[in-house]
Amino acid sequence: MEFPLLGWSARLQRKTFEVLDETALPEAITYITVSDYSEAVTVIRDMKTRAFGQLLTVFYALIITIRNTEKNALEATIAHAVDALNKSRPTFSFKTYTAMVKQWVSEGMAQNKVDSKEFAENKILGFLERIKQMRLNRAELAAALFEDGDVVLTHCNTSGELLLIAQFCKAQGKYLSYYATETRPYFQGRLTAWELQAEGFPVTLIPDNRTASVIASGIITKIITGADRVALNGDVVNKTGTYQIATMAKKYGIPFFSLVQDPGSTETGDAVPIEQRDSREVTTFKGRMIYPEHTNAYYPAFDMTPHTLITKLITFNAALSPSELPEAWSK
Amino acid sequence: MEFPLLGWSARLQRKTFEVLDETALPEAITYITVSDYSEAVTVIRDMKTRAFGQLLTVFYALIITIRNTEKNALEATIAHAVDALNKSRPTFSFKTYTAMVKQWVSEGMAQNKVDSKEFAENKILGFLERIKQMRLNRAELAAALFEDGDVVLTHCNTSGELLLIAQFCKAQGKYLSYYATETRPYFQGRLTAWELQAEGFPVTLIPDNRTASVIASGIITKIITGADRVALNGDVVNKTGTYQIATMAKKYGIPFFSLVQDPGSTETGDAVPIEQRDSREVTTFKGRMIYPEHTNAYYPAFDMTPHTLITKLITFNAALSPSELPEAWSK
Repeated sequence: MEFPLLGWSARLQRKTFEVLDETALPEAITYITVSDYSEAVTVIRDMKTRAFGQLLTVFYALIITIRNTEKNALEATIAHAVDALNKSRPTFSFKTYTAMVKQWVSEGMAQNKVDSKEFAENKILGFLERIKQMRLNRAELAAALFEDGDVVLTHCNTSGELLLIAQFCKAQGKYLSYYATETRPYFQGRLTAWELQAEGFPVTLIPDNRTASVIASGIITKIITGADRVALNGDVVNKTGTYQIATMAKKYGIPFFSLVQDPGSTETGDAVPIEQRDSREVTTFKGRMIYPEHTNAYYPAFDMTPHTLITKLITFNAALSPSELPEAWSK
Repeated sequence: MEFPLLGWSARLQRKTFEVLDETALPEAITYITVSDYSEAVTVIRDMKTRAFGQLLTVFYALIITIRNTEKNALEATIAHAVDALNKSRPTFSFKTYTAMVKQWVSEGMAQNKVDSKEFAENKILGFLERIKQMRLNRAELAAALFEDGDVVLTHCNTSGELLLIAQFCKAQGKYLSYYATETRPYFQGRLTAWELQAEGFPVTLIPDNRTASVIASGIITKIITGADRVALNGDVVNKTGTYQIATMAKKYGIPFFSLVQDPGSTETGDAVPIEQRDSREVTTFKGRMIYPEHTNAYYPAFDMTPHTLITKLITFNAALSPSELPEAWSK
């Protein structure tokens, strides 16, 4: 299975790396060159990349920081880079991952060999390769939940994973069709429509205010979204709008699936900070004001969907109901 | 109470009339000149005007048709005009109103006097004046439902009536604040934010996908929307998105009010045809494609909110619970 463009949206060079500018899609496939970790923070904060792309950006930023820093300054510089990257966006937490990198750098330095910097870099690259495999595995697990003829509603964009799921389904002779929400204000539905359509999968866009009536109409047979965070109890924090979709799914008995990562130590969804984005992201579109000057807008980027509304949480290892989670996560 | 600009968005001239171009707001206040009923159909179909503005457009189109038509051709021409106007948009029905005009034209002709054309015109103008009074009355009835400090969520735009309500509340010493949804794809939230803000009322825009979590957060104390149609049982058909807001309102026990007109003979909301708008209204913004070429989009302009989710229906005469409606409407 070829990995989708949005599924691996950065390219590592020697002293720099390039990040796919998702805000320029689908009109143009352009990459932004990142030369140091502070540029990476800007790219993440400005949402030029998002979801899995921002995790990749964090890891690549740390790799080039390792490469571009003298050994004697390495641990201090990495500590600064990790602090800055951790603060770039509050809801999607990089802390688990950046702590791993700090640890690898320390381990490399402790060995005190010529290749101590390479030790950390190789650990990161190896870990990213495992993530790729885990995401492929998760997509395959998700694909098993769908049947031929399913009409699937999704929200926002899953960094290529929905496309992988569509491809796994197709390989299994299951032909699905897709409804994608627009996902204001960033219109991430553009990405979902673009990547599915480019590969020949039938996809229809709907405004975010149409989800309830589309679900009520009986067209939709299954719903799947990603998750920016998951808690130990199965609560999910994802793009604003997920909660209302999950509420309607429950009301109409439509299975709701969520692609989740490691929960870390977060006990419940309420404990996850919700990022407040700049109101100009609502009031402007591609730099143009679409609302009266000085219009107040309120745009928390995420909302919390309680586990009671979720049918299956698809982890890297299994598709589980919320009640099966505690045991699975205690392993 | 001064009538708001959006509450009376057309101006009658001698042989023509002018319609406020709501799609150009808030950047520009421009009017489109309409010379005959077929131009009126185009203005309505293209949604240059909407909600109450389109009803005004229908009446003014019939007035200029009366004025510009020879007496011997009047009844036949009015019949054509009525047919064309009735077909302009399927969900908001003009039939009750256009049938009245046909009747008035026939009555005028039957009198066979010099002023027989004026008879019909005066009937229309008199009826419009009564509607204005009824809308003022309805706004005052609605205002009585709010308390000082209420935080009010609204969806789409009520053609100036929410502004009237805000003004009635203010006159009664009640200071409210407002949350307005964007209302994709036409962004009618622009109109709501613009008209409230221009008069100094505090208003905050939210993306359509934020309604559920804003309601869940406990900020919102009351919700009010207009209605494009109401049925005899109190079901309401309004701008897509109303249904999901009303569902969440019910779930969180937030009062949900709907400004309604005469139900005509429509028994239930399910009987109302839902207009399918052109998908390009979703995929373009001000003429610019914002999605990949050939993207499918699905955009029924309205959805149906069952009366069980509605706290009060505010008619021209009273604020009633759905259970009180049958008796009120049988009078």
